[in-house]
Amino acid sequence: MEIKIVKQIMEWNEDHSAEIQAELGEKQVFLVNVMGSPGAGKTSLILALIQRLRERYRLGVIEGDIAGQIDAEKIDALGLPVVQLHTEGACHIEAMSIQHILGYFDLDQLDLLFVENIGNLVCPAEFNIGEDLRLAILSVPEGDDKVDKYPLMFATIQALAINKFDMQPYFDFDDQRVEQTAKEINPQVAVFRVSARDGSGVDALADWLCEKIQAKLGK
Amino acid sequence: MEIKIVKQIMEWNEDHSAEIQAELGEKQVFLVNVMGSPGAGKTSLILALIQRLRERYRLGVIEGDIAGQIDAEKIDALGLPVVQLHTEGACHIEAMSIQHILGYFDLDQLDLLFVENIGNLVCPAEFNIGEDLRLAILSVPEGDDKVDKYPLMFATIQALAINKFDMQPYFDFDDQRVEQTAKEINPQVAVFRVSARDGSGVDALADWLCEKIQAKLGK
Repeated sequence: MEIKIVKQIMEWNEDHSAEIQAELGEKQVFLVNVMGSPGAGKTSLILALIQRLRERYRLGVIEGDIAGQIDAEKIDALGLPVVQLHTEGACHIEAMSIQHILGYFDLDQLDLLFVENIGNLVCPAEFNIGEDLRLAILSVPEGDDKVDKYPLMFATIQALAINKFDMQPYFDFDDQRVEQTAKEINPQVAVFRVSARDGSGVDALADWLCEKIQAKLGK
Repeated sequence: MEIKIVKQIMEWNEDHSAEIQAELGEKQVFLVNVMGSPGAGKTSLILALIQRLRERYRLGVIEGDIAGQIDAEKIDALGLPVVQLHTEGACHIEAMSIQHILGYFDLDQLDLLFVENIGNLVCPAEFNIGEDLRLAILSVPEGDDKVDKYPLMFATIQALAINKFDMQPYFDFDDQRVEQTAKEINPQVAVFRVSARDGSGVDALADWLCEKIQAKLGK
């Protein structure tokens, strides 16, 4: 019985996800679903990408959190449209919530929307939210065994940013192992070594994102 | 309807949790539920605690993972009884699974059982697994805002280990903030600053654990 219920929720989520894709396709908005562990640096990397993309695209952010609005305030301070989504204890974001929140944005004035998912390597991977691509962030201090332990996340992404890469000398972290295990389950995944703190590697990720956005929006 | 189903699962879980407590009470086994983000250092800290507690208590470990058995192999290498629990994609451990797994241990030959929960700051906090106490591990690189963002986890624990504390000089991490925000929502929580890697602070945590075990088992 439990499995059946989960499947119903999943199917329902897929319906909403498809509706979001249709709406964002019509409005010419590109949606990036940013996922990773608590403290992987999701907000920091989004902020670093915003710096590099805001001249080219009109940006917005949906900040998903269980509680609080610490991250949303950081986006707001940049003068960008941001909506804080509180999941009220839930461990992931579902498409229906995104669909509802899109109503708070002027989609005609938007090219690129980041959704920062709940800090969690498990559940968010199970739920499409109408995204054009999924970016997972894995930080060096988390360890190089995370692809083996949380395979669904790394199997369902288009890009992997290995963040806090400036900290690699201080940790026993084999980035080649991460790239290799990720590509074993997801041969097409693009892997970037970045530091949101010192900015290294972020240009390459931003350029790659621009290519993907260009392919959809033609700009 | 969705909320009603979740409540049913929760009530069912509470029943199993109470049965585990009764069984472990009769067998005089102390159960510690170890939780934290992916890469917080749960396995490493359990290994460091094992070093300090194995002379005094007969130990066992249940390793919860979505996939793989990397961590269980580390415990097995120490010659301790260990069972690998695969949640098959699920983001937390439920009491029913623990109840089932207890059958694989000789409980008459056990004093202390660690359960390493799935790396996740959200869902595991919602599910009692018949534990005597909950230990959450938060590592320095994850950032000092995690109590605000994941309050349920920090509200439901008896002990918080701030791990990778030797790395604090390299990160913008205010341990006082963590302790203060944790105590605001959980005044009784015991906070330890530790490094599983260099062993600093682990003695104090082990001593505290011994006190709690002594109070239950009388040894």
